Amino acid sequence: MAAADTLAPPQARSLDRLLRARSVVIVGASEKPGALGNSVLRNLERHGFAGDIHLINPKRPVIGGRQALGAIAELPEGVDAAVLAIPGAAVLGAIRELAARGVGSAVIFSAGFAEGGEEGLAAQAEVARIAAAHKMVVLGPNCLGLVNYVDGVPLTFVETPALRFAGRGVGIVSQSGAMAVVLGTVLMAKELGISISVSTGNEAASGVEDYLDYLLDEPNTHAIGMIVEQFRKPKRFLALAEKARAAGKPIILLHPGKSSAARESAATHTGAMAGDWQVMKTLVSRAGVVLVDSIEELGDVLDLAIRARSVGHGTAVLCESGAFKALTLDLCESIGLDLPAPADATAAALRAAVPDFIGVSNPMDLTAQSLVDPDLYRRTLAPLLADDSYGSVVLAIIQTDETTARLKFGPIIATLEALAPNKPIIFAGLDDGAPVPAAYLTALRDLGVAYFPSPDRAFRAIARLASAKPASAAGSAEPIAAALPHGGVIPEYRAKDVLAPVGIPFPRGGFAADVEAAKRVAGEIGYPVVLKAQAQALSHKSDAGGVILNIADEAALAAAWDRLFANVKAFDASVVLDGGLIEAMGARGLELIVGARNDPDWGPVILVGFGGVQAEILQDVRLLPPGLSKAEIVAELRALKSGALLDGWRGSPALDVDAVADLIAALGRLLEGTPAIREIDLNPVVVYPKGQGAIALDALILAD
Amino acid sequence: MAAADTLAPPQARSLDRLLRARSVVIVGASEKPGALGNSVLRNLERHGFAGDIHLINPKRPVIGGRQALGAIAELPEGVDAAVLAIPGAAVLGAIRELAARGVGSAVIFSAGFAEGGEEGLAAQAEVARIAAAHKMVVLGPNCLGLVNYVDGVPLTFVETPALRFAGRGVGIVSQSGAMAVVLGTVLMAKELGISISVSTGNEAASGVEDYLDYLLDEPNTHAIGMIVEQFRKPKRFLALAEKARAAGKPIILLHPGKSSAARESAATHTGAMAGDWQVMKTLVSRAGVVLVDSIEELGDVLDLAIRARSVGHGTAVLCESGAFKALTLDLCESIGLDLPAPADATAAALRAAVPDFIGVSNPMDLTAQSLVDPDLYRRTLAPLLADDSYGSVVLAIIQTDETTARLKFGPIIATLEALAPNKPIIFAGLDDGAPVPAAYLTALRDLGVAYFPSPDRAFRAIARLASAKPASAAGSAEPIAAALPHGGVIPEYRAKDVLAPVGIPFPRGGFAADVEAAKRVAGEIGYPVVLKAQAQALSHKSDAGGVILNIADEAALAAAWDRLFANVKAFDASVVLDGGLIEAMGARGLELIVGARNDPDWGPVILVGFGGVQAEILQDVRLLPPGLSKAEIVAELRALKSGALLDGWRGSPALDVDAVADLIAALGRLLEGTPAIREIDLNPVVVYPKGQGAIALDALILAD
Repeated sequence: MAAADTLAPPQARSLDRLLRARSVVIVGASEKPGALGNSVLRNLERHGFAGDIHLINPKRPVIGGRQALGAIAELPEGVDAAVLAIPGAAVLGAIRELAARGVGSAVIFSAGFAEGGEEGLAAQAEVARIAAAHKMVVLGPNCLGLVNYVDGVPLTFVETPALRFAGRGVGIVSQSGAMAVVLGTVLMAKELGISISVSTGNEAASGVEDYLDYLLDEPNTHAIGMIVEQFRKPKRFLALAEKARAAGKPIILLHPGKSSAARESAATHTGAMAGDWQVMKTLVSRAGVVLVDSIEELGDVLDLAIRARSVGHGTAVLCESGAFKALTLDLCESIGLDLPAPADATAAALRAAVPDFIGVSNPMDLTAQSLVDPDLYRRTLAPLLADDSYGSVVLAIIQTDETTARLKFGPIIATLEALAPNKPIIFAGLDDGAPVPAAYLTALRDLGVAYFPSPDRAFRAIARLASAKPASAAGSAEPIAAALPHGGVIPEYRAKDVLAPVGIPFPRGGFAADVEAAKRVAGEIGYPVVLKAQAQALSHKSDAGGVILNIADEAALAAAWDRLFANVKAFDASVVLDGGLIEAMGARGLELIVGARNDPDWGPVILVGFGGVQAEILQDVRLLPPGLSKAEIVAELRALKSGALLDGWRGSPALDVDAVADLIAALGRLLEGTPAIREIDLNPVVVYPKGQGAIALDALILAD
Repeated sequence: MAAADTLAPPQARSLDRLLRARSVVIVGASEKPGALGNSVLRNLERHGFAGDIHLINPKRPVIGGRQALGAIAELPEGVDAAVLAIPGAAVLGAIRELAARGVGSAVIFSAGFAEGGEEGLAAQAEVARIAAAHKMVVLGPNCLGLVNYVDGVPLTFVETPALRFAGRGVGIVSQSGAMAVVLGTVLMAKELGISISVSTGNEAASGVEDYLDYLLDEPNTHAIGMIVEQFRKPKRFLALAEKARAAGKPIILLHPGKSSAARESAATHTGAMAGDWQVMKTLVSRAGVVLVDSIEELGDVLDLAIRARSVGHGTAVLCESGAFKALTLDLCESIGLDLPAPADATAAALRAAVPDFIGVSNPMDLTAQSLVDPDLYRRTLAPLLADDSYGSVVLAIIQTDETTARLKFGPIIATLEALAPNKPIIFAGLDDGAPVPAAYLTALRDLGVAYFPSPDRAFRAIARLASAKPASAAGSAEPIAAALPHGGVIPEYRAKDVLAPVGIPFPRGGFAADVEAAKRVAGEIGYPVVLKAQAQALSHKSDAGGVILNIADEAALAAAWDRLFANVKAFDASVVLDGGLIEAMGARGLELIVGARNDPDWGPVILVGFGGVQAEILQDVRLLPPGLSKAEIVAELRALKSGALLDGWRGSPALDVDAVADLIAALGRLLEGTPAIREIDLNPVVVYPKGQGAIALDALILAD
């Protein structure tokens, strides 16, 4: 797809008229406290909105000391943004009138559109049509609006503090209005700045992708927190994720839908069908997006992304309890966070820095010694900062009361000021809920230190941020455009003709339309052979007796040929065979299943797993994005639950994992270059010992 | 084991002299602020300690306005408790002198004993000896002491608020002093009362089991929070856990050691070898203990245990966002918390209680409607309270600022006062860190409502507490005492003689000392047969050519007999065979591995899993405690990752799971009744279709 398609749709540049509106009209302005049209006005006033404010109310000429107009028709031409604080039934009419007055954008709070049955769906489509026709940006319906904290533009009825912001902030893009507000509250409690927060609701004419695109260019936005139930433009989102990665602006995403119950709930609630969550996860992770599981985690990872910026590999931990050290080892093993032992020089420096009764290790248990030796923090932190094998340092500090807080925060803050750390420092308080004077937290944060009220949250946030995937050089592998013989089901012999030139290995053999041709093929490859019935209409040939194994010689082949045709006819008289595929009998080996799919929403993805029980009962399969390097594919194969089987088991030899990786890479290039392919199934792929390759025994393609 | 052994060791009744001391001596009393001997005195004074306080200091006759004695020898006879605020090197001498003065108990803060090498170990053993000889209770060494908040007895140098408590409180028993203090802080932040908090350190002469026992009888203790790195008396702990369950006082346990790194760390840090964590987990869970993963979770589950008391099955959720509802469905599926749909009558009542645009479901998304209709909480909560399929109700409330907090907390508190709920209500705030007026939290807590600052924490705590296992009626199954032929390795034919009468099914067959006897056995059971070499010294008979399958007739048996003896002789000339075991050839079936073990620390436990790849690569095994009912064993078998195989797969019939359960139950009874057995291995156990049983093909017993 061309970049123009995915990165800059027509309205993207016009979002300024909404997000940085310099004139606003409130349709349904009200004097009644609590009414939407009143709350919107109060927010504009509280934020000191600098532009013109127009009010529309057919009944009241003066509202809050301001002149109100009786109808939209009385508006001057070209107001930037309209906020519709009116019942859903009145929205469509108002949008038409606003478009006629050249209003640049509109925010629709009302619900009852796509999520409200057929009538609502039609109304929403009409809103979209008007928006497109007039190049009007429409936010909503069924949303809570937006707040631009940088320029002081609050277009929402939710009471919002007037925190004007410039600096290193978080942008919020959420389909759910409530969750956008919750996330904003969480971030403010962490003393993080918010640039712009947008809730997109039903996304009639603009969606999370559009606002994400805008925020990636917004200079005060350095990380983006997203809450999305359903991406409506998945491929555009993936392209934007790559843009975000290139810009060094991490996207942290909370996306419900792992469970089928959640997907159903989202569909009811948003009126949009939920896609395949695992495919979404595979592809957005590949694009560098960090997925989280909860609002709490979303806030924590954003905190770290803003304050610690990037988190390198390897975490050092200073703590004050042996039991806590053991708990940390348990936790970090379970979340895959690496706590490397100190290198020799570092260990020696640490040894020299602490009394004998303190052991040198990672985590390092400083005991309660800092209470009598406050310089201990400086002496132990300095060697850890100097050791390149640590990408971050966690201070897990016990602070049970204001006295200990004073005895510990003071020296730690002084140490950090003196050392000016070159890597992220994370302060993890050990006493959830204990009273910590706010001034200490602010001082830490001013030094770029993220503070967490529990060490578990700190470690989990570090692990999440560290898991963000870097761009892969292999992503540039050339796509392969293949010619397909026809659409629909492409039978095995034709599928193999498509796949073999791409580099998918199959058994030696060939197609034969009659028994004499079959004999020639068998003669060339040598007996014993397999004979398989071939026809587009016969996708389950085994069930039809359409596979005959272990044919020993020419006479047996002739007999088998007749039997094959008879079997298929008996199974389904309507099937006319094209002929038979004659192939060499393969040696036994470990069986994998490999499937490739062009997901209608997300694009190409490849599934690989062990055959049989492993795949079907244990779901021991992995989804791979296309474009992985060979080493990345091998790592994914080894990450299968039964991955150890690939390295040999009970004395069997290690298997040719490289050959499987080549096969998967080739499938990926084919899928990327041939969008007409919907699905490819290779089942089974037999893997042989290292150096002896892997062979796909069967093949099936489904095409447009 | 007799109850007397496990429940009431000699010193248990004398703990009063420590925990409720009415006179205290501080050895090493000091006037210097920050010195241990000064902090202990200040704590006693702050708590208004009502008894006599004696001070020992050889250099200062007056400390803090109190007379000090120059030596322990000057003490009056029979002081209840001594606190040793002196260097480790002086401890042993002081303990001797204190014992001589008839002091009832002592707290030792100093480190450097068992965790400090051989010398320290010897000193600790001497402390233990003196304690036993004088019936003196010794707490520590290497501990932070204790605080009895009920009677106002603080014997610690950690600055502790003087919160005198009586009521429904938490007892804290921790090996780690730091973690005991941290947990205390966490509980106080939750406005929970603490009865007694004890840190046991190295446990020279008294351990967590002793203090747990005491707390189970303490009337202000209603739940116990434990932090333990290594139970030194595991079987006593299991007996106490049963006592706790019977008393309705839940034990919530944080026990590091899931990872091998954590076990090593604990060993270094405490000087005690760590046992098998999985065995610990299996058996303490069975005894009703709730295991948690972090301090945060420990505090959360204790909060729920005290406020919500027991949590029944099935949770209802009222929330205020569709996206949050979807997140909740994802989370609860992943942690196994059941959110049943409302029954018809409940659904109808809910339907009548809410406007049309609010859907009826669980979780139920009330939207932001409560802001204009505060009675909504009452109308929706009432039907949920009336529905017996809900054991608890979570209110997941969005409270972004003080205004919304006021608009929501007020009506909710009024509703709870009016409805007087008959089941636990949990309030989960959705905005981590948002400002919530403390008075609201106190009001909720006064109504028995646990408050969590994040819904995830609430759901996880509910799931943990609901997972506490009830006592099993089957626990009373009669143990079986079997006579063993000898100790050490008991070979297959003798092991089968022990196991068959107990109810373990084996193939038909018998032992033969010579070939004529072998022919008789084969004649009785019918051909084909298997012949297996038998000798105590031959534990891997397959490797020695000691197993000959598929013997068709008498002539073949005679030949096989000679071949068997020749094979074994060639393999190892020193092995003298007892003879051969002749058995019927078994039909093929699904293979399980079953092993039983008498853990040296914890006692009997049974391991079951699928054979081959499943067991060895996927570790698809489960540990079962003995004494489970047949239904419980079947549930454990189905909980194997590949458990679906037992129900038939790809058209194969469902298997005889009941037969496997009978076999496992029999092994459990045998292990409980025959403590001389160390291990039993049945490998493989072949399972046949339902009604056709299961047969153990091999058997091996290792005995004392």
